[in-house]
Amino acid sequence: MMWRRAAISEIIKKALTEEKRVSTKTSAADLVTETDHLVEDLIISELRKKFPSHRFIAEESTAAGEKCVLTDSPTWIIDPIDGTCNFVHRFPTVAVSIGFAVNRELEFGVIYHCTEERLYTGRRGQGAFCNQQRLRVSRETDLSKALVLTEIGPKRDPDTLKLFFSNMERLLHAKAHGVRVIGSSTLALCLLASGAADAYYQFGLHCWDLAAATVIIREAGGIVIDTSGGPLDLMSCRVVAAGTREMAMLIAQAIQTINYGRDDEK
Amino acid sequence: MMWRRAAISEIIKKALTEEKRVSTKTSAADLVTETDHLVEDLIISELRKKFPSHRFIAEESTAAGEKCVLTDSPTWIIDPIDGTCNFVHRFPTVAVSIGFAVNRELEFGVIYHCTEERLYTGRRGQGAFCNQQRLRVSRETDLSKALVLTEIGPKRDPDTLKLFFSNMERLLHAKAHGVRVIGSSTLALCLLASGAADAYYQFGLHCWDLAAATVIIREAGGIVIDTSGGPLDLMSCRVVAAGTREMAMLIAQAIQTINYGRDDEK
Repeated sequence: MMWRRAAISEIIKKALTEEKRVSTKTSAADLVTETDHLVEDLIISELRKKFPSHRFIAEESTAAGEKCVLTDSPTWIIDPIDGTCNFVHRFPTVAVSIGFAVNRELEFGVIYHCTEERLYTGRRGQGAFCNQQRLRVSRETDLSKALVLTEIGPKRDPDTLKLFFSNMERLLHAKAHGVRVIGSSTLALCLLASGAADAYYQFGLHCWDLAAATVIIREAGGIVIDTSGGPLDLMSCRVVAAGTREMAMLIAQAIQTINYGRDDEK
Repeated sequence: MMWRRAAISEIIKKALTEEKRVSTKTSAADLVTETDHLVEDLIISELRKKFPSHRFIAEESTAAGEKCVLTDSPTWIIDPIDGTCNFVHRFPTVAVSIGFAVNRELEFGVIYHCTEERLYTGRRGQGAFCNQQRLRVSRETDLSKALVLTEIGPKRDPDTLKLFFSNMERLLHAKAHGVRVIGSSTLALCLLASGAADAYYQFGLHCWDLAAATVIIREAGGIVIDTSGGPLDLMSCRVVAAGTREMAMLIAQAIQTINYGRDDEK
């Protein structure tokens, strides 16, 4: 899986220094560049050579109309550039995320922070690591001592924004130490896995933002659940993650749902 | 000025791996640790040995009751750990900021990103750099193509939060690509100086968050002004910074004032 890391990292780092041709997808804030397509094609073509029978779910292929359905088949779930808006602005918080599922179970995940050269990995039953260093989540259970991460999401209509701000306000009223918005769901989830934050929640993210990070967080000792407090549904475009179940439930109870539909019904 | 960088960096990086004793200042979100005091004392004692006639304005000395007044005397303006809440949570976005003013004019600034070992420097008339690489701001003038940075600020009462969210909402309604909140004013301002974002605004920051960054942004070709659109007042606890004057004025016009008083009247 690592065999093309240097090549992909070079493509992204070089592109970070250049002017980009940017297109929009679902909204003015939902951006895509030639590099997203290039990196996705490179990853899929290399993996397809090695594993011709495997299936792929990937951000740009899905945007181009491919079905986004998780089956029992071995499936690679790929975000070629997470944090595309950051990438367009050369804001150095950008990652490649590759998860792998068999029988609808997430088996391993790899997330690469392109500018800081940090490789996050997690494999079911075998722990989570960043550049060989073992990751451990925070053990915090008290929301009034928590640092919480979230992302705005692509929808920017007044009703969605109102709910987004209301959720952030509820956490600050509950005296959370702070809320951070870094512009990359996968890297925010990696920070959670490394114990640098106590919780993460988001509406409007996709299975390719979650697949790799979910394994990494669970293997670092953390919890990844649905915003209802029930089990994670990878296709439901919403998540709460935390170092402890108590913290995850406090977040799930505090926030209101923002409806983004499902990845597998688009 | 660099003579103690390694020592300070080691103190902060070591402390980032340890449990911390945390105290609060103006609010539950306004934190201070022993490391803030230790680093501030180290910087001031070293500078005082070399420049016994110089004055100092520093975050923790001010919190302890020292006057925060800028005179014509040569003055060092110091934030020993910017991003203390991040620091407490081991969220790796933490910096040391040292600015220097003579005759109330900012002469140079140094900001050190402790975990990524990036040294940002700016000297009036001589450019701004990050690890020897010249910094240049973004030339964007269109708010609907902007990535905007801000920080929540220490006050968390309902009225302040309402204004904070309302300002963020106004920028997203104006179709700004995104808003990021990274938890360190000085590092956000350094990202602006390096062209990774198009604008920054904040209410509730202090002269020690602004002094070094202001020189660095101006030397990178950017604009640092008051939120009214007028000239920057270092003691007014508010700022708009941008790559271009057009962008700075668009932000100043879009946002409502949040009153945090003045640093020199506390």
